Amino acid sequence: MRTRRSLIDLDDLKADELDYILARTDEFKKSAPGKLLDGTACANMFFEQSTRTYASFMLAELRLGAHVVNLHPMNLSLATKGETIEDTAITLGAMGFSVLVVRHPEAGFPKRIAEVFDGHVVNAGDAGHAHPTQALLDIYTLREEFGSLRGRTVAIVGDIVHSRVAHSLIRGLHRLDANVILVGPDAFLPPDYASPRVSVERDFDAVLPRIDALVLLRIQRERFDSMPISDDEYVASYRLDADRLARMSNEAIVMHPGPYNRGMELDDSVLEFAGWRYATQVKHGVTVRMALLDFLVNGR
Amino acid sequence: MRTRRSLIDLDDLKADELDYILARTDEFKKSAPGKLLDGTACANMFFEQSTRTYASFMLAELRLGAHVVNLHPMNLSLATKGETIEDTAITLGAMGFSVLVVRHPEAGFPKRIAEVFDGHVVNAGDAGHAHPTQALLDIYTLREEFGSLRGRTVAIVGDIVHSRVAHSLIRGLHRLDANVILVGPDAFLPPDYASPRVSVERDFDAVLPRIDALVLLRIQRERFDSMPISDDEYVASYRLDADRLARMSNEAIVMHPGPYNRGMELDDSVLEFAGWRYATQVKHGVTVRMALLDFLVNGR
Amino acid sequence: MRTRRSLIDLDDLKADELDYILARTDEFKKSAPGKLLDGTACANMFFEQSTRTYASFMLAELRLGAHVVNLHPMNLSLATKGETIEDTAITLGAMGFSVLVVRHPEAGFPKRIAEVFDGHVVNAGDAGHAHPTQALLDIYTLREEFGSLRGRTVAIVGDIVHSRVAHSLIRGLHRLDANVILVGPDAFLPPDYASPRVSVERDFDAVLPRIDALVLLRIQRERFDSMPISDDEYVASYRLDADRLARMSNEAIVMHPGPYNRGMELDDSVLEFAGWRYATQVKHGVTVRMALLDFLVNGR
Repeated sequence: MRTRRSLIDLDDLKADELDYILARTDEFKKSAPGKLLDGTACANMFFEQSTRTYASFMLAELRLGAHVVNLHPMNLSLATKGETIEDTAITLGAMGFSVLVVRHPEAGFPKRIAEVFDGHVVNAGDAGHAHPTQALLDIYTLREEFGSLRGRTVAIVGDIVHSRVAHSLIRGLHRLDANVILVGPDAFLPPDYASPRVSVERDFDAVLPRIDALVLLRIQRERFDSMPISDDEYVASYRLDADRLARMSNEAIVMHPGPYNRGMELDDSVLEFAGWRYATQVKHGVTVRMALLDFLVNGR
Repeated sequence: MRTRRSLIDLDDLKADELDYILARTDEFKKSAPGKLLDGTACANMFFEQSTRTYASFMLAELRLGAHVVNLHPMNLSLATKGETIEDTAITLGAMGFSVLVVRHPEAGFPKRIAEVFDGHVVNAGDAGHAHPTQALLDIYTLREEFGSLRGRTVAIVGDIVHSRVAHSLIRGLHRLDANVILVGPDAFLPPDYASPRVSVERDFDAVLPRIDALVLLRIQRERFDSMPISDDEYVASYRLDADRLARMSNEAIVMHPGPYNRGMELDDSVLEFAGWRYATQVKHGVTVRMALLDFLVNGR
Repeated sequence: MRTRRSLIDLDDLKADELDYILARTDEFKKSAPGKLLDGTACANMFFEQSTRTYASFMLAELRLGAHVVNLHPMNLSLATKGETIEDTAITLGAMGFSVLVVRHPEAGFPKRIAEVFDGHVVNAGDAGHAHPTQALLDIYTLREEFGSLRGRTVAIVGDIVHSRVAHSLIRGLHRLDANVILVGPDAFLPPDYASPRVSVERDFDAVLPRIDALVLLRIQRERFDSMPISDDEYVASYRLDADRLARMSNEAIVMHPGPYNRGMELDDSVLEFAGWRYATQVKHGVTVRMALLDFLVNGR
């Protein structure tokens, strides 16, 4: 009887479900929907620091009329009282919560919750594993720019191996028949994306002329002990600057999941580039999360 | 002129007020009330970790249409700025807050606030002293099961001396003419419940056949230095397992205020027992808090 | 094209704007306005402990129907992720936030945000620099008492040099043609208020008979290393007690921005004094913040 829907990674969505969510995002963007989650109880459980994802989910929930309770780690009595997180989730379900939005520094944590929670779990980022709503908003942004992504080429640049955003985005782009090029130094490249439409490239400059979109990633220093190449080397080889921008197609766009570090993965010229889509991504983030929550709770 | 009502412990409610709140809980359970606290300003002041009580109160407040402000310790400027908590409470009253929900690691703290606050204070748990809303939901759950509690027998098992839940529940059950048996090792039994309807028993097995309901308590390790008996001894004598379940009456139910520790005060067989009422308790918790807040703010 | 209004200090308001906000406060006090900020997204960013200012802003926002997201330092991912606060602010603007209420232990921080944020920034206190909404509510309280402040005399007593409240209030009183006397020991007096209507006085007792209002300040111990005079000396010279109260005019009132320390800047007799306006100030605080937010977001 459990027909509850959760979103742990983009794999959880069938292609037509993904299309539905993106179409609803279009609708919501044109005119704000009513209180589609009127009185639905949502708990945001952020076990890891977050500004933009936290604020974006909370705005999405409030705009849909949900009742929102934030359970920061200080409220989560697990540590001192010896309860398992699974039992906490069951308790929240019994209390009347329908939606749990979960960020956690441990891969697989949101999935563990989804397996027992009698409601909808949304993964808001679990360690280096997955961040499906960020990938959804990236895909929405790409589709708004290019229409169908079939045959389009997206390069993802930087610290791919530690990036939950990259992992989710690769899955989503694969589903939509886009070509993906992963670009970075060896230490940042994953060993295992052997797919006909996912390739790996160490030479950023060689890739620039043939891409439709570039996704720059932040180096996730909090996820490894020491930087595998020097900052200077990284900047020399992988920072997007005015010279590299000039070698891209006029129609190409540049995206970043944020937060970005000026001077490291990009310089200030990128922030003024007409193809810089960061603000658009952030704006879409709230709308796509509204569409996702509506889909999970209300179905089609 | 101060006719403001607070709930520090169940003693604050007359028998007919208790009946009224339980009857209103029935009503609210059948159909959600409107915004009975529309725009009423409630501040949740949790000076101690809490998941379920915090979330339950906040949901109750939101469902009644209240305006909710959470004052976590990090917002409470007492420590650095030298103000007394009494003056903070007076300030919050002047600001327009009508309800303060207070949890604190110090017994008597909510009462101190209630003495000066020009509004309604609800004790959400003060150290080992009292936790009246948990007792209210337990009583509601028992009444739903058994109707009148007169002459019914409820055993409370485990760390009674450190349990604010037990203290409040004993008061409430006493008021409703139920018989109470306190069960546990000496170190966990209070010395002072000499009442004709409250008895003390060290032998859990002897008690099982003659009770209508069992309330298991979590061992409050955070409230003492070292465990007075070994975990193994505790488990052997007081853990509810399949054998002990089999010795109870078919109509008996098992309750727990949560959070529960699997393997310690209960084993997994209890969680599958038809008489296990934990989820029901949790669900009632939100409704009974709505009924209480409505009573405190709006009267009858 | 940036015509967005912010409030960093009272200087940002022209005299007629200040009048408008005070007049709107009057209206809102008489009857609660509707949801003038219905669905407007407000983020409260408190990088420093606060009870009253935080709660007052949040109540004001909720009463106007805003969507409120609290970004406590634990949510602000700046520290670990290397983003600048300016970029965080730009991101929040892109996300749809219209209002940022900012408290920070660094002077000038809210102004830095206002320079880049595409919306309205309200300074909720930045170190010892400014606290314009506290000054607004003080001015509103004074005007309610005295009507026009032209020619009235207000003494500000105590730790003026570290007080953001004092700095903002002096600016506001100056604009409204009131006379200001700054009273305190040398170490607490600012060197630079050479204005015909701002004077400095070390002798509190000499000042008492000739003032209309007294603003007592808390000693901001968290802002300096060691107390420049002993507590005993301070109390002897500057504490307001029954004797000093008796020397004031019958029509004079006493104000305090809170939190106040009993026994230090005042004794308990002040709290019972008919001219003690603290509760009134606190109550006005919510209303004046509602009027301010309405003005910033909706204009006149």
